Amino acid sequence: MKPEETPQDTRPLLVRALHCEPVPRRPLWIMRQAGRYLPEYRELKAKHGFLGLAGNPELAAEVTLQPFNRFALDAAIIFADIMSPIASLGIDVRFVPGPVIDEPIRSRSDVDALPSPDPAAVAPEVVEALSIVRRRLDPEVATIGFAGAPLTLSAYLVQGHGKTDFPRPRAFAAADPEGFSRLLGRLARLVASFLRRQIEVGGAQAVQVFESWAGMLSAADWRRLVHPHLRELLEEVGRSGAPRILFLNHAGPTLDAALEASDAGELPFEALAVDWRHDLAALRRRLGPDTALQGNLDPAVLLSDPQTVRAKTEDLLARVPALGHVVNLGHGIQPDTPHENVKALIETVRGESLPATV
Amino acid sequence: MKPEETPQDTRPLLVRALHCEPVPRRPLWIMRQAGRYLPEYRELKAKHGFLGLAGNPELAAEVTLQPFNRFALDAAIIFADIMSPIASLGIDVRFVPGPVIDEPIRSRSDVDALPSPDPAAVAPEVVEALSIVRRRLDPEVATIGFAGAPLTLSAYLVQGHGKTDFPRPRAFAAADPEGFSRLLGRLARLVASFLRRQIEVGGAQAVQVFESWAGMLSAADWRRLVHPHLRELLEEVGRSGAPRILFLNHAGPTLDAALEASDAGELPFEALAVDWRHDLAALRRRLGPDTALQGNLDPAVLLSDPQTVRAKTEDLLARVPALGHVVNLGHGIQPDTPHENVKALIETVRGESLPATV
Repeated sequence: MKPEETPQDTRPLLVRALHCEPVPRRPLWIMRQAGRYLPEYRELKAKHGFLGLAGNPELAAEVTLQPFNRFALDAAIIFADIMSPIASLGIDVRFVPGPVIDEPIRSRSDVDALPSPDPAAVAPEVVEALSIVRRRLDPEVATIGFAGAPLTLSAYLVQGHGKTDFPRPRAFAAADPEGFSRLLGRLARLVASFLRRQIEVGGAQAVQVFESWAGMLSAADWRRLVHPHLRELLEEVGRSGAPRILFLNHAGPTLDAALEASDAGELPFEALAVDWRHDLAALRRRLGPDTALQGNLDPAVLLSDPQTVRAKTEDLLARVPALGHVVNLGHGIQPDTPHENVKALIETVRGESLPATV
Repeated sequence: MKPEETPQDTRPLLVRALHCEPVPRRPLWIMRQAGRYLPEYRELKAKHGFLGLAGNPELAAEVTLQPFNRFALDAAIIFADIMSPIASLGIDVRFVPGPVIDEPIRSRSDVDALPSPDPAAVAPEVVEALSIVRRRLDPEVATIGFAGAPLTLSAYLVQGHGKTDFPRPRAFAAADPEGFSRLLGRLARLVASFLRRQIEVGGAQAVQVFESWAGMLSAADWRRLVHPHLRELLEEVGRSGAPRILFLNHAGPTLDAALEASDAGELPFEALAVDWRHDLAALRRRLGPDTALQGNLDPAVLLSDPQTVRAKTEDLLARVPALGHVVNLGHGIQPDTPHENVKALIETVRGESLPATV
């Protein structure tokens, strides 16, 4: 359902681009734009700690808005962790600084013992922070809600901490596929209700589902174990009407499986985001004109110099058609990124002259 | 060049399978088979430290042979680190336990300052350990030499340590592609001469090139910056006549780029190994019958139970044609792997009845 564009269209650029509607310029936001590359963030974090910031709606809203004092960005993504809904399952998550779960889930009985929290009890601090941000932000800047996708949440819940390629959840999936699938189903329903609250109560105008370790399993296991639950999640969130961005990071061979599911109408999203490894121009040809794409400048490029950033950004803009393209990095901005490089990115994207028809 | 098979063919199974010749059963070895999942290894390591083992040919040979006291394996891979040739560049590598380089390479002038060591001075302890292993090992068991591929070595050399997705080398490649390419060229020549010594002096009957982070860059950057040097390396090693196994781990979209280069005759190898994410049966159809394949049971499956291991191994054997297939894991064996699961893998592979023609 694409609302008609009118001369009075005051909806944020981001929302229009996610619906593949013509825009005067491509919208831009930056994954982890509220975070460690900002000294004002590091200062607040030193004072309150990560959980002190993420758990306090007023502080989380302040952090979310910090980058707007420096940079002209087209969307604010709420400051939170992908693991934020997990506390509502009665599971403690510590950050050292990555998430650590002292009592990981390892069996089907662990899965079956998980409670089914009331939607209003799932990370309400994130929903409230979103409301605060929406009230304070210029109307032309969009607010984005988000959560981790079921497979990514399960990776930390089963492994107990971040680890290259997450062997424990893979072993769980191999030994008890039904138990593992049940875990993903529980997480899909939890995340779906959380994202709907972010949209319907918090006022998020779009949501991003972060599948940070999309390619952990083989494509065959993805189809069998992951896809049904990701589909259920996206369908449920779609009932809210807000555009859905599916970010598949480290997708590997599962990207093709996801595209086939999308072709078949069995994985609904308005926009697909991928990391810098993938060729966004090829993905545009593969997906056709009706699905938006987000990304995918290599965040490592922003560690170099403004000249390189400009050249790589111009190359991205030249290769990827403007219609339905949201400019972003292919992954989160690095903590040691020089701000002049962020400015070079933003100026290059804002300075692009698009034909009147786009 | 495939030597004629005769009834007297006493070459190891592995060598014959790597040349896609008929074998009475599929050969099997296990990445990291000499390592932390063995208590006798942990004991030696506690006494000597990792560098104490890897740097001493007698101890390295002992570690290499340890798994043969427990398991019926068809090849011994020399115990060493992928970074072993780096010391010959005058660069210190510490292990904590992953490799750490205190003075990483960050600029073209750092690259140009690297010395060109004499081939005999490149990790001679590895070459000597190989000779010892060859003398002690049954003739039907093959010896495998190895080294890290240039991109993977550059990842640690530029980043200074292991890090998810290695942003620093990506930034180097973006800001100074010519300087980064020059680094890969230096490493390709170093690794090629090292692998030739392992074959020609150490008696390695096959070599594996470990590209542990094959998909770090986009496919476009792989084609432009990585491929020329990997090709040069493989061509140079090919002059020795020993079969070359190219292991592309975390390949992502660069796998297709590598397959296209292989199609064009511009990336020569006898065998391709990939991680568990990829479908080896599809890869067999894609590559045709003349290139061997190695892999690719998920090592996490070996964290489960013997029944699951047997079922997953049988599935692999059923899907992948036997001719030109070397069974292995899709990545190194996990330190906490129960030995009964290793036995279940080996028994399943050895128990397969192949038709007489294969």
